[in-house]
Amino acid sequence: MINKKKTNKIKVIPLGGLGEIGKNLTVFEYENEIIVIDCGMSFPNEELLGIDLIIPDITYLIKNREKIKGFFITHGHEDHIGGLPYVLKQINAPIYATKLTLGLIESKLQEHKILDDCTLNIVKPKDVIEVGNFKVEFIKTNHSIADSVSIALHTPAGIIVHTGDFKIDFTPIDGETIDLQRYAQLGKRGVLLLMADSTNATRLGYTMSEKTVGEALENLFMNANGRVIVATFASNIHRVQQIANASVKNNRKIAFSGRSMERICEVAMELGYLFIPKEMIIDLNETKKYSNDRVTIITTGSQGEPMAALTRIASGTHKNIRVEKGDMVIISATPIPGNQKAVSDVINDLIEKGANVIYESIKEIHVSGHACEEELKLIQTLIKPKFFMPIHGEHMHLINHSKIAENMGMKKSNIFVLETGDVLELSRNKAQIAGKVQAGRVLIDGIGVGDVGNIVLKDRKNLANEGILTIVIAINRESRTIVSGPDIITRGFVYVRDSEGLIKEISEVVIESIEKCFDNNETQWTKMKNTIRREVNNFIYNKIKRKPMILPTIIEI
Amino acid sequence: MINKKKTNKIKVIPLGGLGEIGKNLTVFEYENEIIVIDCGMSFPNEELLGIDLIIPDITYLIKNREKIKGFFITHGHEDHIGGLPYVLKQINAPIYATKLTLGLIESKLQEHKILDDCTLNIVKPKDVIEVGNFKVEFIKTNHSIADSVSIALHTPAGIIVHTGDFKIDFTPIDGETIDLQRYAQLGKRGVLLLMADSTNATRLGYTMSEKTVGEALENLFMNANGRVIVATFASNIHRVQQIANASVKNNRKIAFSGRSMERICEVAMELGYLFIPKEMIIDLNETKKYSNDRVTIITTGSQGEPMAALTRIASGTHKNIRVEKGDMVIISATPIPGNQKAVSDVINDLIEKGANVIYESIKEIHVSGHACEEELKLIQTLIKPKFFMPIHGEHMHLINHSKIAENMGMKKSNIFVLETGDVLELSRNKAQIAGKVQAGRVLIDGIGVGDVGNIVLKDRKNLANEGILTIVIAINRESRTIVSGPDIITRGFVYVRDSEGLIKEISEVVIESIEKCFDNNETQWTKMKNTIRREVNNFIYNKIKRKPMILPTIIEI
Repeated sequence: MINKKKTNKIKVIPLGGLGEIGKNLTVFEYENEIIVIDCGMSFPNEELLGIDLIIPDITYLIKNREKIKGFFITHGHEDHIGGLPYVLKQINAPIYATKLTLGLIESKLQEHKILDDCTLNIVKPKDVIEVGNFKVEFIKTNHSIADSVSIALHTPAGIIVHTGDFKIDFTPIDGETIDLQRYAQLGKRGVLLLMADSTNATRLGYTMSEKTVGEALENLFMNANGRVIVATFASNIHRVQQIANASVKNNRKIAFSGRSMERICEVAMELGYLFIPKEMIIDLNETKKYSNDRVTIITTGSQGEPMAALTRIASGTHKNIRVEKGDMVIISATPIPGNQKAVSDVINDLIEKGANVIYESIKEIHVSGHACEEELKLIQTLIKPKFFMPIHGEHMHLINHSKIAENMGMKKSNIFVLETGDVLELSRNKAQIAGKVQAGRVLIDGIGVGDVGNIVLKDRKNLANEGILTIVIAINRESRTIVSGPDIITRGFVYVRDSEGLIKEISEVVIESIEKCFDNNETQWTKMKNTIRREVNNFIYNKIKRKPMILPTIIEI
Repeated sequence: MINKKKTNKIKVIPLGGLGEIGKNLTVFEYENEIIVIDCGMSFPNEELLGIDLIIPDITYLIKNREKIKGFFITHGHEDHIGGLPYVLKQINAPIYATKLTLGLIESKLQEHKILDDCTLNIVKPKDVIEVGNFKVEFIKTNHSIADSVSIALHTPAGIIVHTGDFKIDFTPIDGETIDLQRYAQLGKRGVLLLMADSTNATRLGYTMSEKTVGEALENLFMNANGRVIVATFASNIHRVQQIANASVKNNRKIAFSGRSMERICEVAMELGYLFIPKEMIIDLNETKKYSNDRVTIITTGSQGEPMAALTRIASGTHKNIRVEKGDMVIISATPIPGNQKAVSDVINDLIEKGANVIYESIKEIHVSGHACEEELKLIQTLIKPKFFMPIHGEHMHLINHSKIAENMGMKKSNIFVLETGDVLELSRNKAQIAGKVQAGRVLIDGIGVGDVGNIVLKDRKNLANEGILTIVIAINRESRTIVSGPDIITRGFVYVRDSEGLIKEISEVVIESIEKCFDNNETQWTKMKNTIRREVNNFIYNKIKRKPMILPTIIEI
């Protein structure tokens, strides 16, 4: 029996999503109950060679496994749901999400073959789920994926509003605007803590309505004479809807290209989030049956991802689609920082092949899914929280967001810019950072979870830049002779065919090194290996200013 | 004796700078005379693992070595001078450039220890150099490095104007505006071909004057209470001048940080392009002697380059500078595509350490050095060439630039969007693409020129993503026994300490593979190695979904 005084203190512990864009996961703990909002992943930067994806370190959750009452998911983007398959293998708790979000989670869990072990609960905006001392209320928002919600968490210490990712769209495609009235009502009643999306906190003004993109697309479609190929994020169902609408209006059949585009659109059509007349959809290999001005292709690859459909179309390696003069290619997305070069390579390739490419810097064919400064101010005004914690952003976004709140009159001491792992403890009148729990990132490579760390990554980096040179030699220690070898194999170092002379010289250096060891009576393996490594390294560096990794193996006969 | 009819035909052969930003080099050939404009390098993208820099393939120039009369350089940026040390090792011809440009070239040739073998000639705007049938006229331009020129090439076939990199700045820092009058005069007389900078051809409007940056900087300096740290391109001497002016005005001592910043500023001060009162310059390790509001640090690293000074300041690994609360860090540059992520990492690190970071998206503290659409139109209007060839740009820039000319009434058939290696042949009334010469890129790694090609790069990529696993085993073929091993060494694959079990299992797979070979009488080395490779590969992939490079070595005793 737990015999604890009721403290009315709630802990908020972000395990991801602060100081970074991605892997959002926040823990809310009250006495011996925990609920979790979102469970995302992030994509590796180019330094993390060979890493497939990153999830938050959930040691804290595993330790407190018994307390966890549920995962509450705000929307279906990877940075909010991508960690679930990995986390649910270690933690058993029900998931609550709206229909489309759940549909996307389902197909993910199926892929990982754990769907049958999971409990999924569909919710809808305005639903309130009671779990222990928490009441979890779902509130409609607008974002670049349909069926997004924010969460008002009613706790014994007060109300916490977690916006999830959001923007304010007065003319959204599904007709349902973010529920500002409910925010205002909660604000009137008194909100203890607001946790709000900071992704666009460094951008002034307002984010435009999704509907403006539809108008721009329609204009382009009206003037297109060849095929129209549109690349966008597969999960942006409303964007896909608008592309489809423009196609139908212009009597164009629609084909989908790219695995995730096909998968997500299928889920969305099945669940009633995407409406395209059946007879207008054709298979990708049927497009040739129609004249070019009767065809639209909706594809992945708006970020220039190496294996995505648009990239393959651009490089001429796509199985079904060859770009032709007269094709219009619309890239309806903004390059995420880090992807700009890849995207412009794709654009150049397409232009070179004769396509008319419409991209962001020349037409307004994309809007963000996140609130800009003025929208963030509106939310602050409606909710008027006692305490504020900017979430979902790199340091620059969090700091800018906190300045926005400060400029609106909030006391600096009431604003909390946390790091992942920080514990924010709140009671009715007080908030403070009270300790830190283990937090960080877990790298996933193949199905290995967390077995690639700094040493492995450092080796990969060296290998990437300099290549490797292996030396195998068999010696007889007693007779002090070389029995076989040295065999030298290189990878990623130099063209062997052009460098026979160099390899021969390296062989000689190896033999000299070994003879030197024999002469000096230094016949321990480690010493011999070190001598070989050092001498070969010096020789190569002096000769061609490179430093391949050198791996000597000595076999004793 | 060459006995050729005078044809009055001139060939223009770009060997770099088309379909790319970088490694600009254009050949102009008339009968048995060649002159070259610019000789640049480019930086590798992230695909080119371990490559230090790229120069154009100059096979064509080497073949025609005897014809070359000189290299004429428009300005001192790396993409216009960086190839010189490599090219001049193979070709002996004089260099012509303005004073600052030549100063920068000199220090480069000195580094490569070939300065004494080169002939350098200082020119200034309005100079005309006569070489054989060519008259090479230098014309003042504005750009993001001082002492930039464009070139009017007077040939027997007509006048060719090559703008080099340029913008139109009516209030430049050195007081000398681009010589628009001379352009107009040449235009009036009749220009055969215009070759113009396309870098900003996708940007509408005008590029702002460099002076506007000075005003923004002064405002910032006036409100700074701690140290001011400004990062910019080392070669942007006018920007450095303006930072220095704002410092002197606010009674701040100036320290330089970063090797290229120190080197270029030294050259610029020596040659009279940068004016800072001697007593205001201090050494970096002297900054602590002054109160923070009396110190400015001008540094490299505006692109987030891993080893640059600002990056080290941000990560806390700089020898002399620790960022403190109250420091203002100004990043006076735009991230080049591909560098955005690195730059925002630096910004986040600095903000986290308490600095007030001023970067492009929040203040206007940078202007481009290249002409936007309206400026390009002005140049077309003044020069009114018969033929036009957009240069210096990726495909999208070249195409946009050609559309600008077309929209101004130029015939499409008079516009030539070339690829590197294309030969544009011009006579007084006609221009046509007449053939192609060898062209491409040469990769430089260490001091190896061109010895890293596709196979090596592919290996490096595999090594980077998956690591390597070497297997060494000694066998006796006659007795069909394993004498020693298998010794398994991995790099960049898994943590060996955590994976002893896995390595042991791999050992067993190797032994089984060899025994299988013995059983099947497959004892040729190649077959045995292939079997080991295949079996180990399958085992590892099934076990953890990775594909390290596998290098088996069999030694026979």
